[in-house]
Amino acid sequence: MSTEVTVIEVGPRDGLQNEQTPVSTEDKIELISRSVAAGVRRIEAVSFSHPRLVPQMADAEAVMAGVPRVEGVSYIGLVLNRRGLDRAMAAEVDEVNVVVVATDTFSTKNQNVTTDRMLETWDEIAAETPAGIRRSMTIAASFGCPFEGETPPERVAEIARRAAAAGADEIALADTIGVGVPAQVRTLTRLVREAAPGVPLRFHFHNTRNTGYANALTAVEEGVTVLDASAGGFGGCPFAPAATGNIATEDLLYALHRSGKTTGIDEESVAETGAWLGTVLGKPAPALRGRAGGFPQGRTS
Amino acid sequence: MSTEVTVIEVGPRDGLQNEQTPVSTEDKIELISRSVAAGVRRIEAVSFSHPRLVPQMADAEAVMAGVPRVEGVSYIGLVLNRRGLDRAMAAEVDEVNVVVVATDTFSTKNQNVTTDRMLETWDEIAAETPAGIRRSMTIAASFGCPFEGETPPERVAEIARRAAAAGADEIALADTIGVGVPAQVRTLTRLVREAAPGVPLRFHFHNTRNTGYANALTAVEEGVTVLDASAGGFGGCPFAPAATGNIATEDLLYALHRSGKTTGIDEESVAETGAWLGTVLGKPAPALRGRAGGFPQGRTS
Repeated sequence: MSTEVTVIEVGPRDGLQNEQTPVSTEDKIELISRSVAAGVRRIEAVSFSHPRLVPQMADAEAVMAGVPRVEGVSYIGLVLNRRGLDRAMAAEVDEVNVVVVATDTFSTKNQNVTTDRMLETWDEIAAETPAGIRRSMTIAASFGCPFEGETPPERVAEIARRAAAAGADEIALADTIGVGVPAQVRTLTRLVREAAPGVPLRFHFHNTRNTGYANALTAVEEGVTVLDASAGGFGGCPFAPAATGNIATEDLLYALHRSGKTTGIDEESVAETGAWLGTVLGKPAPALRGRAGGFPQGRTS
Repeated sequence: MSTEVTVIEVGPRDGLQNEQTPVSTEDKIELISRSVAAGVRRIEAVSFSHPRLVPQMADAEAVMAGVPRVEGVSYIGLVLNRRGLDRAMAAEVDEVNVVVVATDTFSTKNQNVTTDRMLETWDEIAAETPAGIRRSMTIAASFGCPFEGETPPERVAEIARRAAAAGADEIALADTIGVGVPAQVRTLTRLVREAAPGVPLRFHFHNTRNTGYANALTAVEEGVTVLDASAGGFGGCPFAPAATGNIATEDLLYALHRSGKTTGIDEESVAETGAWLGTVLGKPAPALRGRAGGFPQGRTS
C-alpha cells in the first residue's frame, strides 16, 4: 500500500484572493463543490480578513453558507485577528489557519504588524479557538522574502516553536513568493521537526520560478503528507509579479499519482475544474496537465 | 567547492525544430552567440536530418558556418544516418548525437525505422565518426511513449548497453513527451549505469506536465552532471500538443544556482535571451525566471 498524500485545495482562497476579476459567490461555491466531488477532503474556502483590505474575500460568510456539508470534508478559514475568529466560528468553519510572516518587513507590509506582534495574535487565537476546531499556522515567506532576501531558517524554526507551544495542530511552511528549492525543503523540514516535535508538517508552494513541483515532491520524499495546491494553478502574491501562482492541483496530482502515491482525488476532474476556472477568470490556467492530458494509455489490444 | 553542472543549450535545435514560425539563419546564429557569451560551453546547434522532413533545420550548414568558434565551446549536430554524418563532418561540428527512440511505434512514426534498425544505424555512425569527435546517443521516449504508454526501463537499459558497446562517449535519456517523474529518474539512472558502466549520463527533460524541473534536480542529486535545456523553454514534440517544451535554461539555472551548484553560465543573460527569442517567435517564453526575476537581493544597508 502506497503512502497517502492529502492535497488541500486552496484555490477558493489563495487562488482567488489577488485576482482583479471579481468572482461571484456562486462561482466560488461551484469551485468548492467541484473540488469536493473530485474527492478533495480539505479546502481552504475563505479568508476572514477585513473586506476593505481583501475585497475578493468579502463574501466569506455567504460562501460558507453555500458549501456542501459532506461527511469527512473539512473547510479552512483564514483568520488574522480575534474578530476574524469570531466570524469564522459563526460561519462554522472546521479549521482556522493563521498566517505569520517570517520576516518583519514583509509582515508589516502585508499585515501591518511585526512578526512578534503577529505571534501574540496567534497565541490569542489559538487559545480561544474552541475545542474540536483544528488550528494551524502558516509561516509565510519561509523560503525567502521579497524585501529582506534570505529568510533565516532558524527564524522559521523559532516561529514553529511558538506555534507548537500554543497547541498548533499543524504547521504549514509557505514559499509565498516562489523562490524555494528542494535543498531548503529538506533543511526546513529537519529544523521545524526539531523545533515542533510531533506537530504535523504541511507545505505550501508557488511555482513562480518553476521550482514548486520539485519542492512538493521533495517534501513528500521527506515524509510530509499534506500539501497545498490550487486548481488551475491560479493565485499569486501582489509582491511576486509573475504569471504563475500556486502549484496547480491537477499537475501535483499527476506527479504524485505517477510516483505511486494515492490521494483519493480524481486528476481528470480537477483538470476540468482548472480549465473551467480559467473561463471564469478570463485567462488560461497556468496548469499544464489539463492541456497535455494524462499519461498516455497505450494501444488497446 | 560545489559540484559543477554542465547545462547544454538545445534551443537552436530542439527548441526551434517544431516551431511553425520560420527562424532566420541570422537569428539562429544570434541565439548561439548569445548562449556562448552567457557562458554556455556545449550547444546543440543543428540537425542534419532531411530538409524535407525538418524544414526548420534546412540551413544547418549555414548556421554552422556562422557560429563563433571559441576555445572550449563544443557544437553538437544531430545525425540520423550516414549522409547526416558526412554533412556534420563537413560542417565541422565537435560532437554528433544520434537519437534512438525506445519504442517501436514512436520510432517508426518519428524516423520511419524500428528501434532495432536504428540501433544498426547507430553502430554504423559510431564506427565511422572520426576520432576526436564526441559521439553520444539520446534514447528518446525513455520515460513513456505517446503510442505505447509505459516504456519498459529494461528496454532503455538494453539500448544503453548497445550504445556503450559501440563506444558512446555519453548517453542521454530523454523524456521526449514530458511524462516522467523523479522516481523514474532514479530507476533509469541505476539501470543505465549498470548497463553502460563508466559512460557519462545526461538527461533531457520536457516540462509538458510540470515535472521537468523536479526530474532535472533529481538527476543532479543522483550524481548526473550534464543536463539539456532550452533558452526560454521553447521546443516541443509534434506528438505532445502542450504549451510548453524543453525545460528552460534560465529556470534550470535558477534552481541549480539556488541549490549551491555552479554552472559557469550567467542566469540573467540567459533570461534576456529567452525573452528575446520570444520576440523572434512572436509568443511569450514558457520560462518563468525572466518574468519573475531572480532571488530578491534584500535591502541594501
